[in-house]
Order: sequence, then C-alpha cells, then structure tokens
Amino acid sequence: MPSPNKKKIINDPVWGFIAIKNEECFDLIEHPYFQRLRRIKQLGLTHLVYPGALHTRFHHSLGAMHLMGQALEVIKAKGTHISEEESLAACLAILLHDLGHGPFSHALETTIVSGVSHEELTDLFLAELSHEFKGLELALRMFRDEYPRQFFSSLIAGQLDMDRLDYLRRDSFFTGVSEGQVGSERLIKMLNVQDDTLVVDEKGLLSVEHFLSARRIMYWQVYLHKTVLAAESLLINILRRAQYLAAQGAQLFATPHFFRFLRKQYSLADFLDDPTLLHSFARIDDFDVFSSIKAWTEHEDRILSSLSRYLVDRKLFRIYQSRQPIEKEFIDNFSHAVEHQLGLRPGEGQWFVATGTASTNIYDSKNAPIFLREASGRLTELSLKGNPLPPEIVETRYYICYPRELDINF
Amino acid sequence: MPSPNKKKIINDPVWGFIAIKNEECFDLIEHPYFQRLRRIKQLGLTHLVYPGALHTRFHHSLGAMHLMGQALEVIKAKGTHISEEESLAACLAILLHDLGHGPFSHALETTIVSGVSHEELTDLFLAELSHEFKGLELALRMFRDEYPRQFFSSLIAGQLDMDRLDYLRRDSFFTGVSEGQVGSERLIKMLNVQDDTLVVDEKGLLSVEHFLSARRIMYWQVYLHKTVLAAESLLINILRRAQYLAAQGAQLFATPHFFRFLRKQYSLADFLDDPTLLHSFARIDDFDVFSSIKAWTEHEDRILSSLSRYLVDRKLFRIYQSRQPIEKEFIDNFSHAVEHQLGLRPGEGQWFVATGTASTNIYDSKNAPIFLREASGRLTELSLKGNPLPPEIVETRYYICYPRELDINF
Amino acid sequence: MPSPNKKKIINDPVWGFIAIKNEECFDLIEHPYFQRLRRIKQLGLTHLVYPGALHTRFHHSLGAMHLMGQALEVIKAKGTHISEEESLAACLAILLHDLGHGPFSHALETTIVSGVSHEELTDLFLAELSHEFKGLELALRMFRDEYPRQFFSSLIAGQLDMDRLDYLRRDSFFTGVSEGQVGSERLIKMLNVQDDTLVVDEKGLLSVEHFLSARRIMYWQVYLHKTVLAAESLLINILRRAQYLAAQGAQLFATPHFFRFLRKQYSLADFLDDPTLLHSFARIDDFDVFSSIKAWTEHEDRILSSLSRYLVDRKLFRIYQSRQPIEKEFIDNFSHAVEHQLGLRPGEGQWFVATGTASTNIYDSKNAPIFLREASGRLTELSLKGNPLPPEIVETRYYICYPRELDINF
Amino acid sequence: MPSPNKKKIINDPVWGFIAIKNEECFDLIEHPYFQRLRRIKQLGLTHLVYPGALHTRFHHSLGAMHLMGQALEVIKAKGTHISEEESLAACLAILLHDLGHGPFSHALETTIVSGVSHEELTDLFLAELSHEFKGLELALRMFRDEYPRQFFSSLIAGQLDMDRLDYLRRDSFFTGVSEGQVGSERLIKMLNVQDDTLVVDEKGLLSVEHFLSARRIMYWQVYLHKTVLAAESLLINILRRAQYLAAQGAQLFATPHFFRFLRKQYSLADFLDDPTLLHSFARIDDFDVFSSIKAWTEHEDRILSSLSRYLVDRKLFRIYQSRQPIEKEFIDNFSHAVEHQLGLRPGEGQWFVATGTASTNIYDSKNAPIFLREASGRLTELSLKGNPLPPEIVETRYYICYPRELDINF
Repeated sequence: MPSPNKKKIINDPVWGFIAIKNEECFDLIEHPYFQRLRRIKQLGLTHLVYPGALHTRFHHSLGAMHLMGQALEVIKAKGTHISEEESLAACLAILLHDLGHGPFSHALETTIVSGVSHEELTDLFLAELSHEFKGLELALRMFRDEYPRQFFSSLIAGQLDMDRLDYLRRDSFFTGVSEGQVGSERLIKMLNVQDDTLVVDEKGLLSVEHFLSARRIMYWQVYLHKTVLAAESLLINILRRAQYLAAQGAQLFATPHFFRFLRKQYSLADFLDDPTLLHSFARIDDFDVFSSIKAWTEHEDRILSSLSRYLVDRKLFRIYQSRQPIEKEFIDNFSHAVEHQLGLRPGEGQWFVATGTASTNIYDSKNAPIFLREASGRLTELSLKGNPLPPEIVETRYYICYPRELDINF
Repeated sequence: MPSPNKKKIINDPVWGFIAIKNEECFDLIEHPYFQRLRRIKQLGLTHLVYPGALHTRFHHSLGAMHLMGQALEVIKAKGTHISEEESLAACLAILLHDLGHGPFSHALETTIVSGVSHEELTDLFLAELSHEFKGLELALRMFRDEYPRQFFSSLIAGQLDMDRLDYLRRDSFFTGVSEGQVGSERLIKMLNVQDDTLVVDEKGLLSVEHFLSARRIMYWQVYLHKTVLAAESLLINILRRAQYLAAQGAQLFATPHFFRFLRKQYSLADFLDDPTLLHSFARIDDFDVFSSIKAWTEHEDRILSSLSRYLVDRKLFRIYQSRQPIEKEFIDNFSHAVEHQLGLRPGEGQWFVATGTASTNIYDSKNAPIFLREASGRLTELSLKGNPLPPEIVETRYYICYPRELDINF
Repeated sequence: MPSPNKKKIINDPVWGFIAIKNEECFDLIEHPYFQRLRRIKQLGLTHLVYPGALHTRFHHSLGAMHLMGQALEVIKAKGTHISEEESLAACLAILLHDLGHGPFSHALETTIVSGVSHEELTDLFLAELSHEFKGLELALRMFRDEYPRQFFSSLIAGQLDMDRLDYLRRDSFFTGVSEGQVGSERLIKMLNVQDDTLVVDEKGLLSVEHFLSARRIMYWQVYLHKTVLAAESLLINILRRAQYLAAQGAQLFATPHFFRFLRKQYSLADFLDDPTLLHSFARIDDFDVFSSIKAWTEHEDRILSSLSRYLVDRKLFRIYQSRQPIEKEFIDNFSHAVEHQLGLRPGEGQWFVATGTASTNIYDSKNAPIFLREASGRLTELSLKGNPLPPEIVETRYYICYPRELDINF
Repeated sequence: MPSPNKKKIINDPVWGFIAIKNEECFDLIEHPYFQRLRRIKQLGLTHLVYPGALHTRFHHSLGAMHLMGQALEVIKAKGTHISEEESLAACLAILLHDLGHGPFSHALETTIVSGVSHEELTDLFLAELSHEFKGLELALRMFRDEYPRQFFSSLIAGQLDMDRLDYLRRDSFFTGVSEGQVGSERLIKMLNVQDDTLVVDEKGLLSVEHFLSARRIMYWQVYLHKTVLAAESLLINILRRAQYLAAQGAQLFATPHFFRFLRKQYSLADFLDDPTLLHSFARIDDFDVFSSIKAWTEHEDRILSSLSRYLVDRKLFRIYQSRQPIEKEFIDNFSHAVEHQLGLRPGEGQWFVATGTASTNIYDSKNAPIFLREASGRLTELSLKGNPLPPEIVETRYYICYPRELDINF
C-alpha cells in the first residue's frame, strides 16, 4: 500500500491543482533525473521577449500527466476498455517524455550535443530507469510507438497529444499571449477511440479548427518570434565559439560536466559505450550554460566576450526576415561588411552573423491526419469536412542576424 | 523627442500589457544593472513548493512601475497636482526600488552579504546611476523619504505601496494561490491624497480589510510556508559551510564574482571605498549561486556535498514548528543526536540543523497606520472604524530543521 | 441503460464544464419545476448595482451539483465509504435545494408569499416529485437532515456546504467583485469525514480562514450593499402597495398566477389543502413580478405608479445607515416630513419610507462550529486554533430609505 | 462643473472597471431609454444553451464606451489630433448605438416590428434625445457616417469597431466559450489612423487574423448554434401565431405596450407621424415578451399554447441542417406529415415547422477591407499579406425545425 504522503496535490496556476495519484509517479517525480527538469526552462530564451515565460519542463511534464489522466477518463467513459496497467504506463510515458531535453534544447542540439537527439536521450533515460521502476517497460513501448493499441502513442506524441495540449496552453498562460489559448479541456472531452485509433467526436470540429488556429498564433507570435530567433542565434554563436576555443585548448571557465561536452562531441554510440556520459548529461541544466556565459563576458577572447555580453546585457542581434531564401553570396558579402565595420580579421565575421530558417506546417492531412467521428462511427479526415483550415502549406521565413551596433539598413 | 522605439509594450500575464511610456524609463530598463534583475527570482526557492513561482524581480519592477502610473492618474484626477517631474521621479523610484537585491535575498543577507542591506545597496546603485541619468536625483530623494510631499514615499514604500500591490498579486498569480489575490486595481482607484499624505477613500474600507486578509494568507501560505522555510534554511547552511571552507583556504568551485564575496565579508564602508565591489555585486545572480552549489555536490568536503545534494535533488530538510520558542538546550541535544545518527564528528551537527523564527504583523495601527478619508475630508485610522481586522499582533512561529533521513519524531 | 443523450456537458464560465453524469439528474433538470429556475435570478435586484449579476438559480444549482460530485470523490478517496445510492441522493438533493425559491426571494417572502418559507416550499416540491422520480426519498431525508450519516446534510446545508461554495464563487464572478473569490476547489480538496461528521483537514486551516474573510466581503460588498438594500426596500413597498390595492378590489394588471398571490395571503396549510396553489406558485418568476411592475408605472394610483417608476427607471431610494437602531419616533417624524415634502395625505408617508436591518454573523463557534482534523484524527474547533478569524459577533446596520427627490440631509 | 457623483466606476467582470468619465455620458446612462437596455438580453434566447449568457445590451454598451475611450487614447498617442468635442461625440455614439434594439431583436424584427430596422429606431431615439442633450448632434452624424473624419464611424460600426470588440469578448466570457476570446486589448493597441482612415499597425497582423478566427468560432459555436436557431425559430412562430390571433380579434393576454405592436404592424412613416409609437416601443423589453408567452401557455388556442409551452418548458424544436437549400416541395410534404402526426387541420403544419438560413462571411476584402500600415506609412489590404485567413466565402447552412415529439429521422 502506498504510504499516504505519496499522494500529493501541486498548485498549478494553469490547471488549478495537479494531483499525483499513485506511488509510481510520485517516486519518479522524486528522482534526480526528473527534478533536473526544474532547472530547464520550457522556452529557453523566450523570456527575453515575454518576461513571464520562465516555466520549466518539470512543470509542463506534470501538466501533461494531469491531462493524460483526464483524457483516459474521457475515453473510458465512452466505452473503450483501458487496463490499470495501460493507464499507469501512459501516465508514466507522458510524465517522462521530456527527460532527454537539455538546457536551451534547440541551441544545444545544434552545437554541443549535436550527435544525439533529445528523443534518443529520453529513450536512454527511460531504459536506465526501467531497471529500477516497474511499469516503465510498457511506458517505453508506448513512447517508442511499439505498443499495438496505437492511441496510447497518439496521446503521448501525435497531432492532439497531451504534450501539445499542455504546452500550448501553458506557454500562452506564462507569456500572456492570450490569443494563443487553446481550449484543451474541451478538446479532451471530444477525444474518442475507434479501433484503437485516436479520433475526435464530430461535434469537436470547431474546437479542432480553433486549436490549429491558436497553435499557428503561438508559432509566429512566440516560438518563432523574431527576437526569440535572434536571441537563439546569438546563443548558438556563443556556444560554437566556446567549442572552437575549447577544441584549441584555450582555458575556459565552465561548470565541470558542461565542460566535458564543450570539449568533445559525442555520438549515440559513445553514450551506449560509456554510461557516465549520460550521468554527466543529467547534471547539465540552464544554470551551467548561463553561468558559464556570464563568466565568458570577461574572457580574453574578444569574440567570445563580446557575444556573451550581448546576451547577458540583452543587446541581442538584430534580425532581418524574408520570405525568399537568402543567397550564399549575399551572406558572404554581408559578413565581409560586418568584419569591416567591427574591425575584425578576415573570416571572423561568421561569429557575428547568423542565418536560419523558421517554418511551420500547422496541419498535414497526408502524414498526420486528424479524424472526426460521426455518431454512426464513420470517420472523416478533417480537411474533407469542407471547413476553412489554416492552409496545408509549409510557411517559411528566412532570416539573417547581426549585431545591433552595426549601421545596416534593409 | 524620444525615438519612437523607446516606447514599448510588454506582455504581462498579470496586468495584460505594461507600457513603457517614456525614454528615461526605457533607458534605465536597458541598463545592465536593471537587466540583471531578470536573473533574480522574486521568491527565491519558493518554486520548490509552487513550481510556477519563477518570476523575477525584473518582471515585478516593471509591474510596480505600471501600477505607479495608474495610481498617479487616480490621484491627479481627484484634484492633487503632480508635476511632470514628480511623476517621472516616482516612476523611476519604484522601477528601481529592488536594484540592490542579490539572489536568494534573505539567505545571502544572512550569510555572504550580511554586512550591507539591500536598501543600502539600492541606494548605492541609484547614486551611481544618477550621474548618468537625469531625474534620478528626485527619485533618490523620494526613495530615501527625504522629499517633503510625503505621499510619494508612501507609494514607493508604505502600507499600500505599489511594491506590495504588485508583488502580492504577482506572487498569487504565479504560485496559483488564488486566495491571496489582492484587488490591486480597486485599491488603487480608492487612493487619495490629503495634505500630501496618502489616504484611502472611505468607501475603500472593505478593500483595505480584504487586502490585509489576503496579505496574511500570502504570508503563511507562501512566504512562510514551512517547506519554503526548510529550503531556505538548507541554503543558508550550505552558504555558511562554503564560506567556512573558503575562509580556511579550501579549493572551491565558484563563479568569479561570487567567489569574491564567499571569501571575505564586506561592510558598507568597503563598498564606499572600493567601487569595484559594487560592480562585482552587480554581476551576481541566481545562476552564480546555484551553479556553484551544483558543483559542490561533488566536493570532497562531505558536509558541503551532502547539503548541496539535498538541495539540488530536493531532499529538503524536514521542519518542526512551534508557537513557543525552542530552547537552546533542546537544540544542543538535538544537534548531538543528529551527529550520532549521521556519524558526524562533535560540533558538525550544527551544519545539519537549523533554527529560525517566522513572524508577521499584518497591521500596526501605531507605527504604520492607514487612514480612511470621508467625503468631508475627515481622516480616521483604519482600526477605529470598528470593523474586524487581522489582530494587531505579531504572529510568530519557531522552527527547527533537520535532514529527512533522520529517524526523529516530534 | 441511460440513452446516450442523457449525459450532457454544459458550459459554465465559472467551473469550465459541468457534466450531467446520470439519467436521474438529467430528467429532473428537464422538469418544468427545475427549468423555472432559469427565470429566477440568484441575486434579485443586485444587477442594478453590479450589472453582470444576472445569473440564475438554475445555473447555481447546476454548479452546486458539480461541486457535490467533486466533494464526494474527495471524501471517498480519503477512505469513507459512500454507496451509489447515497451519492445519487446527495447530488439530487443539492440540485433541487433551491426549488422552492420564488422570484426576488427576500422581497416576496416579506410580502406576498410571507406565509410559507422557501425551505417549506422546496420540501413540498420534493415531496411531489418523489412520486415521479426514484431516489428522491433519500434525497429528501438528507435535505430534511433526517439521514443518520450527518455529513450528507452538512454538504447540502452547513458551514461549508456546496451551496455556499458555489454561490459565493459564482456571485463573485458575475459581479466582478474579485476580492470575494473563495477558493472552493482547494477547500473541497481539504474536506474529510470522521465518524460521519464533515470536517476539514488541518492543513486547510488557512483556506477556511480565507473562506470566512471572503464571505464577509461578499456580504458587505454585495449582498448587503446599501444600494441593493435600497432597491429591495423599494420593491417591498411596491408589492405591499399592490397587495393593499388588490385587497381593496382595485383593478390591477398582473400575470394570472401572480395575481392569485397578490390578492390573498396563503399559509402552509392552504398549500397542503389545495395542490393547485403549488402549481400556481410554480408558474411565477421574475418575469411576472417585473412585467407587472412595469405596467403599474401607468396605474392610476399615484403611489403605486410613482414607486414603480422609481424602480423601472432606476431612481432608487436613497439610504441612510447607522450602527445604532433607528428609533420609532424618528421614523414617524421622518414619514411626516416626507408626506409634507411630497404633498401626500397623512399616513401615506409609510409607502415612501422603509426601514430595515442588515446583519451578518460570519462564524459562530457554538451553533455552527467547523472542525479541523489533525493527521492523528484529533478534531479541534476552528476558533481554538489560535488564529485570527472574523470576530464572532453579529455585525448589524440599521437603515432608513426614502425617495431621492427629497431634500433631506443626514 | 460636474457634480462629483456624476463620475462613477462600475464593476465589470469583463474589463475590470468601467469609469464613466463625464457628465454627459452619466446623464444619458441615467435616462429611461438607456436604463431600458438593462432589460434586453444581448443574446436573446442563447442562455437556453449557454446558461450564463444573460448579459444585457446595457452592460455591452457600457463596455463598448469603455473601449472607445481606450481606442481614442491610443490613436491620439500615435499623433492623430482628436478634439474634446469629437472625443465626447464618439463616446456618446457608441454608448447609444444599440438604443433602437427591441427585445429578442432578430425574432421581433421578423415579426412584430418588421416595418422598421433597429438602426432606424436608434436614429429616431438619438434624434429625440438630441433636443435634450448637447453633443448628440455630432454623435448622430458619426453614427450616420456623415462625419468627414471617417475613422470615427469605423470605430462605431466597422470591421474593427468597439461594438464587436466588446461583444465578442463579452459573449465569450458569459457563455464560457473561451476559444472565442478575442484579444481586444491588443487589437486596440494596434489601431492607428492614416488620412482619417482607421488602419491597423502592421505588427498587429497576427492579432487581426486571430480576431477573424475567433469571430468565426463565435458565429458557429454561439450565434448560429443549432439549438439557438431552433429556439429562435420557435419564438418566431409563437409571435406570428399571436399576431395572427390578435389580427382576428382574439383575446390575448399581453402587457399594454406590447399589445399595441401585436395588433398592428407599423412603418417608419407611422413612427415619424406619431411620436407616441416610439414611446410605446421604448417600454417594451424581454419582460413583456416572455411574461406574455408564459400566459399564453394556458391560452385556448391549442397552437399558441402548445408552442408557448415548448418554449417555457424548454422542449425546443429539433433542427436539421444542410449545406444545400431545402426545397419548397420538401417543406410542403414535411408540413403535411407534421399535420398528420400531430392531428392538425390542413394548413396548420406551418406553425410547427420553421425553415431558415444561417450564414456568415467572416472577411470581405472588397466591401469591408482591413488595411495594415507599415512603419513607412504604406497601407496593404489584409488578404494581400499572403497569410492564411478564413476564406472569403459566405458559409451557409439551411435548416428546418420541427417539434421534438415527432417521429422523424433525417
């Protein structure tokens, strides 16, 4: 029998209260691997634009678990049998789905931890934990989409998974971008299962449409906000430069485990060979990255210290966006101009310029269809309902970033 | 004329939008001293109990500035003249009122920066900035309560100041403790000025009562929550131990500026003598403290590493609270028992035990009265209105903290 | 098996969604007696002060049913057995607890339906419905506090019943008086049952304190708001005058069933004798009262038409309040002055003057104690916990109302 | 100088507080014509689906005035000059824009008051009031779109007028359909004026897109919700039947002024000839209509009483919807079937069947374009920005309603 103090209620300004309903979840939440998510912000540097956006992957994971409980209740009440064991596994899988994320995920995956994806790292963590905790094996199968009752995987990672239903709402809440508020509760009430496939009851049509619309808002207003892209590009350049210096044997202040990854690039094979690598990774969070960058503001390498100061004092890159790709020649010329204006040596312009692509595809009826279910049981793919949807196109913007002190006009 | 991009609107989930209305505020917000507040959480370790409580002094300061603008509008509309210059100074003063706060304020002021109060540090910062920014001199006078029109100081630091009206609401919002939600907007609409004294229009009586009640809730439910006290006690012991080791010349990983304060205790005189001290202080934030503690989890000093692991992995101290003071003899015996159970050397128990006092006095009619103003202009002190208020007593609780692995019952 | 369309979800801006979970509740909600509550505002004339306060007893009853479901879940999860039958009965009892309310309850009970209380009428309705619907007998026993497991009655009508937990929150929501927002969800999570008595878990202490404080706010800011009292006094005088005219045989426009009650006063015995009386009562709602008053604005009786116009055009009575009782002699003199100023005949002043008493007693430790339960099972009455509470006194205000066109100063 | 009590603050759960900032608005709000809007629900019978939707045109008009004040502030701050007189007129015009609405607007305009539109009636009211109140003439010109500075009319009635920005948000709030929540505050901050035309600053693009999407949600989820359409169709049939009976001289309970309109159809010319007609119209509100229908539940005409009972007891029509027009022949056959099943006389089926069309056109770039303004001052019509919008098509649904007791399947 669970000891009574393993049932807990956590205050959540988004959902009111989150109840931890069983011992297994409680014990995993207590584990240092999960507690580490307390120190990884869900939205990286987004708080530089929306100062409230400091919420963590820890909080989000709890929220997603909370919604999973509700979704399973709804599905059961509509007549689909779900065993105790399946229910627990689904809750564990969603609780742990972000375990492999490092700090500033996108920036680190582009630089320091570029050899292994966060999904692979989550898999590694789950595999390790499954020796210690029962129930995790089934969770791992669901997470890997290897469990035959496919709707469980859809609830964990799919068009209408509990991950999205929590983070879209949570990100809207903490940023204050109220237009992006998705109606997660209503959508969950509209979920159903037919032939082990996750579907939406037909009368949820408008809710799904609104969900797609709100999601698009969140993409362009928050996740791909131009200042957020500029901040991230700056962070990437800082990390690239630090990596470059470390590779050359330069002395560099960094917290110990973070330094291990700065100095050398690791592959999935390395992680499988040497378990201490995963343990090191498990000790890195926002604090390591940012306290190191803060120290680098005084580093003797003028490039590293300048870029670091830009970030710490929030003198972020400026950004220019275009709907057309930016040509290589243009970027080269641009870098030369930067070198000239800042008095840099040839080739050093690359550290002060960054380019990238921001794109979304809000709905893809071919590869990730959403099905609506009529009372009769007939399923229809969403876009065939004849209602206006965000168009199924990849919306793309190309951008180039550069120091704000430059005298450049577009 | 201000360049147009110096007027900005910032999303705030608490107040909707915060407008930066003038160039002076904009420029100060851009200053590294103010940007540093982005990295200092308003509520220190409270997020270990309320995971949403990650908001910063940066966000709070902007919110308080926002409310100041509203309060001045209300007061002007009721017939009190306020000059442009006064208005600007009041906004600057409230914007900068938290500038002297370090990370984990209470814990640091008890240990590493115990020689100088955060008010003194704010004063030092303001004095330095006033060389660079106009308008700050008047702000500084208001901040120091030296300006004759006393209500400005009351709006900055008083029973119903904009500081409280923002932080109480903001803390309630991010913790999710909705019972503590004060009606700041209504209270502000009830403010008035008579003979340069800040008063409340009589019909705001209930709002004031509710404010006091909600404030009391926030104290016991959030600020003095027992687990928060336990976490803070643990942090204090960690810092004390690190300071002790540093004083002995032990090697200790720490970010550079943080280490300067770990190694030596400074007084206000030191700060006045050596301006670089303030600059060092200005570089310390949550990241320095926490990334150092994370490194200490692997320190060879068993006491430091144990305590640090407790905090990082959230194996916080347990806490026992009492309405009676805890006797010295009891604490000594308790420490010995701890030493025994943990196999420590004599005298080492002190690092694993902490005691403290939590107390509030929600309203003090003698020293900090609130006056209600009848339409006739007559003022009455709040408690004389004959309505029930939180009693004017200092509510005190005494506590003792200890490792959770111990087998101790109270 | 319930036909599927008998499970419904209703949008509620207060609680999000209210699910009707079983056929019995669904059928009762469909019944004309319950549908009638759609036309009875929860707060009578309060919308004349708070324009959003138009919500109905229908909406409130659904909300209270929703909370009952949650409370029973919490109590069961803490180990108290509750049978299906008990659970259904409790939900039905709270759903129907307001069935006997007429329109503008307080005003009508003082005038036209003064012979029978709304609790007696609810009882009559429940008794009649119990012939038709199963499960209602047990609900009726709980409603009458005749069921031995006493906590069910406490959940229906007690210090912390679902009635209060819904209406306080709902009234706060629709009036916009956010200070009165009680933390119903948290309080419900703190409920427990010991020896069939409803208690609160000890750690809910602050929540209970806050509940009492918020409730007090709602009393003085909303329920006993002086303009609300003035409006209600005016309504009472209108109804009294109409009753007086009807008794004299004057012609009077009124909807048919309303007229039956205007013309003659009925006792509980009358209701028991003649079942058509209850059926007539069941046809009266806000529409009858107010459309009749609107017609009376053009009635030939100058007193009735003047008072009716005051109400319809919102030229409400002015009100003077005192903490001391208002002496009979004063009232008489006052009425004479009114007669004089308005050019009325002797004795007619009574229709233009109204007096009354507003009083509250927020907590009464003797007659309606709240018990807190320690983990050990020990119960302590709230006021013995040593924390500040609203004082256990009957706060009383005496008031006198009069036409705003009068030239009277207090 | 305005007497001080003419500045008032009204609690509004939607916008927090609404301040009445000048004497002119105050006096008009006090006028019986405006007070009458307290008794006209904004959304007619929608509360039969969303029980919270009881808010009135009174509350909405105050909210729209509140937003107008904010919009004018924003526009002025961006450099467009607006005189005191214009500002007042715009506030008055939006405050009074709904004055001509009768109860259950759509239903009445289709039946009893079908000769005159609510805009014409508003015009009549404004013209009458302008004799009494100064400032109204300019307001009337703005309302009629006769004022050369065209943006004032756009703020009163246009794609992004204060009417919509209030009602969409308010209706979302009171129904609880949170997906329809438009970001009115943000949109207002994005408004601008160029060459006296209302435009949106370019960076408000996403906000406008979201506005259109949320508006579409509100249409299909609330305004054209199928049960709302069914309820309204029922109401229309009731009123048509009552009109039919009244024309035949049948005795019919009705409140006096309402009866005047039941008995005879009036044209705009009649209103211009006989001012008492407008005065009669000004006395009709929800109470007249609904209390009459309640009395008709016992009328001897079996058709009228049946239909009335359907509405009062909420046994609403069923509704069948189609994307294709419903053919006349089908309707005729359908009516015959209804006559047969209900045992009606030939021709009486028409009273139990209703057909109609629901359609929306969320954005019309030709006839009602929205212009976005780049920093350079260049204007671009919204749909040319290349972003996905709700398609510019008239979405139409055709429906047929019939009694729920019938045995009919579609």
